[in-house]
Formats: sequence, C-alpha cells, structure tokens
Amino acid sequence: MRLQIAVDSCNTKELLELAEKVYGSVDIIEVGTPMIIREGQLPVRALRERFPGACILSDTKIMDGGKLEAGYACEAGADIVTVLAVSDDLTVRGVISEAHRHSRQVMADLICVPDVAARARELDGMGVDYICVHTAYDIQSTGKTPLEELEKTMLAVRNSKVAVAGGINEKTIRNVVRLGPEIVIIGGALAGAADPRAAAGRFRAAINV
Amino acid sequence: MRLQIAVDSCNTKELLELAEKVYGSVDIIEVGTPMIIREGQLPVRALRERFPGACILSDTKIMDGGKLEAGYACEAGADIVTVLAVSDDLTVRGVISEAHRHSRQVMADLICVPDVAARARELDGMGVDYICVHTAYDIQSTGKTPLEELEKTMLAVRNSKVAVAGGINEKTIRNVVRLGPEIVIIGGALAGAADPRAAAGRFRAAINV
Repeated sequence: MRLQIAVDSCNTKELLELAEKVYGSVDIIEVGTPMIIREGQLPVRALRERFPGACILSDTKIMDGGKLEAGYACEAGADIVTVLAVSDDLTVRGVISEAHRHSRQVMADLICVPDVAARARELDGMGVDYICVHTAYDIQSTGKTPLEELEKTMLAVRNSKVAVAGGINEKTIRNVVRLGPEIVIIGGALAGAADPRAAAGRFRAAINV
Repeated sequence: MRLQIAVDSCNTKELLELAEKVYGSVDIIEVGTPMIIREGQLPVRALRERFPGACILSDTKIMDGGKLEAGYACEAGADIVTVLAVSDDLTVRGVISEAHRHSRQVMADLICVPDVAARARELDGMGVDYICVHTAYDIQSTGKTPLEELEKTMLAVRNSKVAVAGGINEKTIRNVVRLGPEIVIIGGALAGAADPRAAAGRFRAAINV
C-alpha cells in the first residue's frame, strides 16, 4: 500500500517547502488540480528539479484532448497523469497511449461517475494503470465518504490498481486500509497538518498495519 | 450572436500574437484548457494586461473545488469561467457563487453529458449564464457534430444563453447559425487559419446573416 499526499492550495514555493518536509515519508507527491489551474505544470517541473527521484502525480483531470494534455504533463516530468473517468473512451485511450509512450502511468478518476463498478470494468479493460475512487471535495460536507464505492471498485477490477481519495483523515483511514487499495490519497489532513512530517509518519503507520 | 475564438495549442507569446490579429473581429477570446494545463492562468493575465477591454474566457473545465478554482480564474482577469456539467451540483453552485461575487459569468460545458436536455434544464435552474453544447475534440473524427444536441438544448433552456463548440468550420457554421445560439465557438478553423484576421471576418459575416 502506498501513501500519496495531495497538495491543492499552495503556490510552487509553498509546495516545495511542504515536499521537503514529507519527502521520504510519502510515496507519491500530487500536484493538485487547483495548483494546475493556477500555475499549469510549473509546480510539476519545480518538484522534478528539486526531487529527481520523487514519484510525482500531475492531477490534470483531463476531459478532452487526451494526447495533447497528457503530453504536457509528461514533458514537465510527471510520473502519473490523471484523466476523468466521465470523459469519452477515446480521450482515456489518448491519455494512455501518450503516457505509455513516455513510459509514464495513467490514473482514471471516478469522481462523479454514476455507476463506478461498470465504468471501472471498462477502464480496467482499456488498460489504465490506476483507478481512483474519489469523493469530490465539494460534497464531503454532505457526509459522503468513498468507502462504499471503494468496495464496489475493488471487486470490479482485474488488472488496474485501485486508489482512493476524498476527505480521508487519521480517524477514517483504518476503514479505508481494511479494504486494501494500492494507493491511499490524503489531502488536507496531511498537507494542512500543523506538523506534516509527523502526520505523514502516523499515516504511514496506519497503512502498514 | 457572438463569435468566440478558442485558442488551445499555443504558448502565451503566440496567443498574444494571435489575439492581436483577431481582436475587434471576435467578441470573446478563450484561453483553452490545454493552455491552462500547461501554463495555468498566466495567459489569462497576459491577455488581460494587453487587452484591458477584451472579453476573456478561461476554459478551466472545473470538476471539483468550484469556489477555489473559479476564484483563481477571476483573480487572473477572466470574464467567464467554465465548469463541467458532469460535475456535482454543489460544484456548479460554488463556481456560480464565486464568479458572480466577482461580477463575472459562468459557462457550463455539456461535454460528455448523456442527457443534455435534462442537464441543461438543471443548469438553467441553478443560474449558469451560458450552457455550452460541446462535441469533444477527441470524438470529432467519428463524424459527430454538436447540431442535434444544440437543438435539444435550445429547446430545454429558459434563462441561460446557449453556446456551441466542436469542430465548427466555414462549411458547417451555417447549420449552427440557423439554430440561433448566443455564442458560436470556433477553434482550429480560426486559430489555425493561414490568415486568422480574414477568417474571423468570414465567420463574422456568417453569424451576421
């Protein structure tokens, strides 16, 4: 099981400071979509320069122009690019072919997919490397968690690995870990912690149970 | 009827050169999603500085974090920000409230929505300013056009205005204009024209019929 930190509301300078604190304690550093909306692939490039050995995910949430947009993330140094599972199959396939041409990986994000099991099976068949069960930030306040969809997705996939994101914190991580995903993504509970290094250690301990 | 140019595969310098050629001939200049994936809101800021009076659309295609991401586009100087219609209603509402707080406007993009009429009615009820019927770039090669969905959407909305995008060129624009959308969005056929200024003049003539 791998630990991914999602960094959403920072600028590149703050991202590098945060990465300095958690590098070595997390397995994957995610440049979140809000950062990309604001600064494009600049933070990905900066992370790659400072941490040549890091595994970096660029949360591009591609919806169209699959090849073109995946290419930008790969050129900037991302190891993993994301595509929206709600996008057309041709977009997903474009992202896969471009990322794999660069020897990079693809994560498909199930956010707002109505039937996660059915779509996960299709994505699995298309050859995405990771399928991410994701409760949108904007709906977490309604009490929704990714647990039920995680269970359905774990049962649906054969080859792709499963990731999970959506408001996971130190209280709820145990329920997530129990279902056995490959990647657990922590956002605010890690990036916004008073001591991110210490928090990363506690999350690491929780996934190593 | 207004004419919008969508600029996708440029850097900021090339965008400014292109904008110089078409400014005055088009009503709205769109910074396309691939540009944002690569450079964030930098091209929006650069356009705003060079053309203080331009109407600029930042094609953010927001999927989550509605308030935060819409805020970044507004702060950069965008007049219109886009949200994906496939996102949760709470995300759409977040984008609307943030954009309207800045006295800016919201376009919801129907790309990959299965039932466009039903979703258009919902978006109309939520108060989005524009609803965009959009055939994804990645599926245009299959021969799909936005015409049928445009007709359905025009019939479904009451208050929102309708925009249309997806491979429209000088041959097909007449069929689009006939249905009476408020905004016609031209991508490659204008941004990629040998003489964009002349092409803009011809598209302008076509929508003024």
